[in-house]
Amino acid sequence: MRVLLTVAYDGTDFCGYQIQPDLRTVESELETALYKLLKVETKTIASGRTDSGVHATNQKVHFDTNASIPAEKYADALNALLPGDVKVISSKKVSDSFNARYSAKTKTYRYSLYFGKVENPMLCRYKTLLKFPLDLEKIKSAIKVIEGEHDFKCFLSSGSSVKDTVRTVYSIKMVKKGNFLDFYVKGNGFLYNMVRIIVGSLIAIGENRLTIEELEKAIKTGNRKLAGKTMPAKGLTLYSVSYK
Amino acid sequence: MRVLLTVAYDGTDFCGYQIQPDLRTVESELETALYKLLKVETKTIASGRTDSGVHATNQKVHFDTNASIPAEKYADALNALLPGDVKVISSKKVSDSFNARYSAKTKTYRYSLYFGKVENPMLCRYKTLLKFPLDLEKIKSAIKVIEGEHDFKCFLSSGSSVKDTVRTVYSIKMVKKGNFLDFYVKGNGFLYNMVRIIVGSLIAIGENRLTIEELEKAIKTGNRKLAGKTMPAKGLTLYSVSYK
Repeated sequence: MRVLLTVAYDGTDFCGYQIQPDLRTVESELETALYKLLKVETKTIASGRTDSGVHATNQKVHFDTNASIPAEKYADALNALLPGDVKVISSKKVSDSFNARYSAKTKTYRYSLYFGKVENPMLCRYKTLLKFPLDLEKIKSAIKVIEGEHDFKCFLSSGSSVKDTVRTVYSIKMVKKGNFLDFYVKGNGFLYNMVRIIVGSLIAIGENRLTIEELEKAIKTGNRKLAGKTMPAKGLTLYSVSYK
Repeated sequence: MRVLLTVAYDGTDFCGYQIQPDLRTVESELETALYKLLKVETKTIASGRTDSGVHATNQKVHFDTNASIPAEKYADALNALLPGDVKVISSKKVSDSFNARYSAKTKTYRYSLYFGKVENPMLCRYKTLLKFPLDLEKIKSAIKVIEGEHDFKCFLSSGSSVKDTVRTVYSIKMVKKGNFLDFYVKGNGFLYNMVRIIVGSLIAIGENRLTIEELEKAIKTGNRKLAGKTMPAKGLTLYSVSYK
């Protein structure tokens, strides 16, 4: 039986999602809990990895098992074995042809910021502080430049060796509520650090440190140096994954 | 000059407020930052200590200095030297007769809970999960029993050696918004773990595990065992301190 888990985690104290020797990762916590439950090593497949400090409200993870536990019981059973900063929201049976990684159609990331004069310690793990107001209208124009299918090489962290840098950004929604500002970026896939660089570019435009024309040139030329800086990991959350 | 700081902190990664050898505490972070800034050891006095895992949005701390820095500049200057989980919201000059501890008139603590089936990793440092609905009307009646001047020995953690256990609870406000439930407990002072035991007792009443009559008896007899359990530290925040 193939079981799909919806997993939420606070990424602060994890060295990212993917298993690494001797480091605390989300994947190792999940597989350790599965081992305790099933008494057999069980490999998990996630929709994708997330970096150190990045959170998730709806990460999707599948695994195969011969155990007789009903699929929907895995959430409670695993939660009893998991630490407080990673929990299984729900679990269900999926067909053997379903793959949490390869069946994914779109992913949505949220990037969270807030306006203030002083960093709020209660938000320091989850949102990035903005000390200056932004020109939101300019940001709206910049969003239109980014949305669509493009070669997004300019939003790829230098050092990455990925070859195909064409992706589709279906939408970027900007939501401002009081002093809080969230960007929801939905795409068919993202390059390494792409969302954090997109948001860094939008903030640079909103602070008049980057023009729309320069952003267009960055995308056209694929020059990482022309785009904005990479925003801190802590503001980023894997918000949802949709499947075919 | 005597300077008063308003300090906020996320208590998760601190071993409480008060300095202890070789442990990370809020007080030691503040005094380390003051030392870096002023190049001289500077003793601080807080409105009171908070326990390991307890947060603060408006802790009050004073210190004396001969430095020529204007009082209102200490917030920015210290924030540049402080870690993300403790920040100075504001700073101002106060009279030499003012004392952050002894001039305090009332303190208000907030205790935060939320209703859900599964613990939310993003809230695991800040709010306590309630898996069952509560009888809020019963809790309102219980609040009336607790408010006022009483000998609150029954809400004092066993093992404490404090002698005078009479305190005044001016008000307990219960605020429910969606799945979130907050208690604001305002008093002239609190015994060790008193707020956490008050909330534990209110929850026990809301879950029909404790009756109003039993609560009245607990207060009357001062028997800790008749009151509710001590709620986890993580839900507790020093919310405000008022002065004469």
